[in-house]
Amino acid sequence: MNVYVAGTAMTTFGRHPEANTVELAVEAGRAALEEAGVQPEDVDTVYVGNFLGQSLHHQGVLASLVARGLGLPFVPATAVEGACASAGIALRHAVMSCRVGDARVALAIGTEQLTASPVPEVTRGLAEAMDRETDGATGLTFPGFFGLVAQAHETRYGTTREQTASVVVKNRRHGRHNPLAMFREEVTVDDVLGSRPIADPLRLYDCSPISDGAAAAVVTVDRPTTAQSAVEVLACEQASGPASISDIEDLTSFPATTSASTCAYARAGITAADLQVVELHDCFSVAEIVDCEDLGLLPRGEAGAAITDGATTFDVGKLVVNPSGGLLSRGHPVGATGLAQIHEITAQLRGTAAQQVEGAELGMAHNLGGCGASATVTILGRA
Amino acid sequence: MNVYVAGTAMTTFGRHPEANTVELAVEAGRAALEEAGVQPEDVDTVYVGNFLGQSLHHQGVLASLVARGLGLPFVPATAVEGACASAGIALRHAVMSCRVGDARVALAIGTEQLTASPVPEVTRGLAEAMDRETDGATGLTFPGFFGLVAQAHETRYGTTREQTASVVVKNRRHGRHNPLAMFREEVTVDDVLGSRPIADPLRLYDCSPISDGAAAAVVTVDRPTTAQSAVEVLACEQASGPASISDIEDLTSFPATTSASTCAYARAGITAADLQVVELHDCFSVAEIVDCEDLGLLPRGEAGAAITDGATTFDVGKLVVNPSGGLLSRGHPVGATGLAQIHEITAQLRGTAAQQVEGAELGMAHNLGGCGASATVTILGRA
Repeated sequence: MNVYVAGTAMTTFGRHPEANTVELAVEAGRAALEEAGVQPEDVDTVYVGNFLGQSLHHQGVLASLVARGLGLPFVPATAVEGACASAGIALRHAVMSCRVGDARVALAIGTEQLTASPVPEVTRGLAEAMDRETDGATGLTFPGFFGLVAQAHETRYGTTREQTASVVVKNRRHGRHNPLAMFREEVTVDDVLGSRPIADPLRLYDCSPISDGAAAAVVTVDRPTTAQSAVEVLACEQASGPASISDIEDLTSFPATTSASTCAYARAGITAADLQVVELHDCFSVAEIVDCEDLGLLPRGEAGAAITDGATTFDVGKLVVNPSGGLLSRGHPVGATGLAQIHEITAQLRGTAAQQVEGAELGMAHNLGGCGASATVTILGRA
Repeated sequence: MNVYVAGTAMTTFGRHPEANTVELAVEAGRAALEEAGVQPEDVDTVYVGNFLGQSLHHQGVLASLVARGLGLPFVPATAVEGACASAGIALRHAVMSCRVGDARVALAIGTEQLTASPVPEVTRGLAEAMDRETDGATGLTFPGFFGLVAQAHETRYGTTREQTASVVVKNRRHGRHNPLAMFREEVTVDDVLGSRPIADPLRLYDCSPISDGAAAAVVTVDRPTTAQSAVEVLACEQASGPASISDIEDLTSFPATTSASTCAYARAGITAADLQVVELHDCFSVAEIVDCEDLGLLPRGEAGAAITDGATTFDVGKLVVNPSGGLLSRGHPVGATGLAQIHEITAQLRGTAAQQVEGAELGMAHNLGGCGASATVTILGRA
């Protein structure tokens, strides 16, 4: 069963003090349905990815509330949680519902409202993506964890702080073209290295921001008949990995990413070298370096140097990574990020992106949760 | 693709002060794998149903933690939430993973730890299954909601308080045989009517208790080769419905239940009259009356009288409802309940139940979330 992306949408990412988790999801879902030319009554199932709607806002049954808000019939409405990978997981289940024949039209939405809560509450909430009994008990935070990842990559491969900072420079340069991104100003390596220390060696600009927002995709078994190129889901895979640092053998690689991408390449029948455009999970600058290596986009240990040399930007490399600006520019409303990635890759394959990768025919999205607890890898192709 | 229940297990339901949400899930999951004769490395995907692990215990990425705890490989591990229907939703996705060919062996687990938290926190947590912006803001609780349902059924159909109480009497009588149930003492109609008022007309014994526990099922595409009868999943359907009282047209029926059961009967190719045994969602006594009518087991408006006359108990009716004792006796660790129902129906179809429905060949489980926000209906058959 072939499955297509018929439409995508996202809210602006940033601060939405006026909107709660459900309202953000409904806004993105409605826009995706409109973009796909699909009526609510034609939706057969809905998946909602979210991380902190219960912890911060005490609202469960989120998927049912979103379904009612969209005016959907009594279709299955399911909330899924995998920390920062929640939206990727939502998409995988929308695709699965189509593949198994339970749905002709499935809607996947990711949503998160973070900035309405006090920062200490958000920090505590984000730590729910760690094992509370081990890492959580030590007071480890996510910047702290990725600081350790950066130190490990430096120690093992000689990756420099300037190389890590160059990820931020590239993604901010890409992000300046993205009208939905939270940050649209360029920064220099010196700006990054001179920004406020967060968790050594990571500085403020090495970290994706706390944000609100939602994103959505409509997937269908019927090939879209729009004027634009149809976009097909060639693979949408998910894997799990160690959820606590005490269980991680090697801090310079996330097994969930390698496992999900190996499955995805096999299902799509392609290799990493076939891709022209990738959106990956740069929650911190160093994460993009690790992700590029785990996904097989750049040789192990060499991603820092290669990114600094422009291997993954416009007009230089054969591949563009995070043309949207990534999490570092676009923002990171945790449960929404995976579908914002799909929004960008779909636009790139249709040839309608704000900053277009010329001739893009194969694209990939990579969404990572927790300390590598979950990952999804989705490969889309121009059909 | 045929899908079978290869093994099930549950912890005792009640108080587990020693165990957290993950540990309960691992205990039930491990026992289900052992019962199925399946090694952890042969599991292809795991789904974990849970409601309040984040709100009460600040632990996300639950599915990945459970997967690691069970020693599973890097397989997809997904947490799903649909309030009290979370475990039914987990099962549906395990079954779907088999049907689509992504898994030969899938594990579904439901888990909840409630009694370790102060009661006011639990009460607030349970209210997350309502729409916080509407019902939640009024201070409505779940006993309050089901009290309104009982009043509506009384007004519309003349159902009496004695009839509603007779549900409790029946389920407590069934539950005395269930070694894993929280309550194993019989009660009389007078006991129920004389117990402490909770939300008019519901009394203490009309309400399922706050409990801890976990339950699990292993589903496979390979027909189990055990000595016992193989149990096949004939349908596993899910629907959504109004999530807030202001959106409910008729308090005497839950559209999510009717929708899910209509789909399930159609997929299984049976009618309600073909069933010998049903586990349904008696979170409150009156819920069993409404459920029996919504599922088409008893005529609309007549379930109270019929249950009082023994239509759904051993040796009297053609059908036994809640032979395990239901939520009223077994207890209701919210995210686990749907799979405890599957544990009972599987035992009934294998002929190994603590109190056996003789000759049971077709059984059904019905799991309801929130104010009818979600429902799942699963039909199992002796294969």
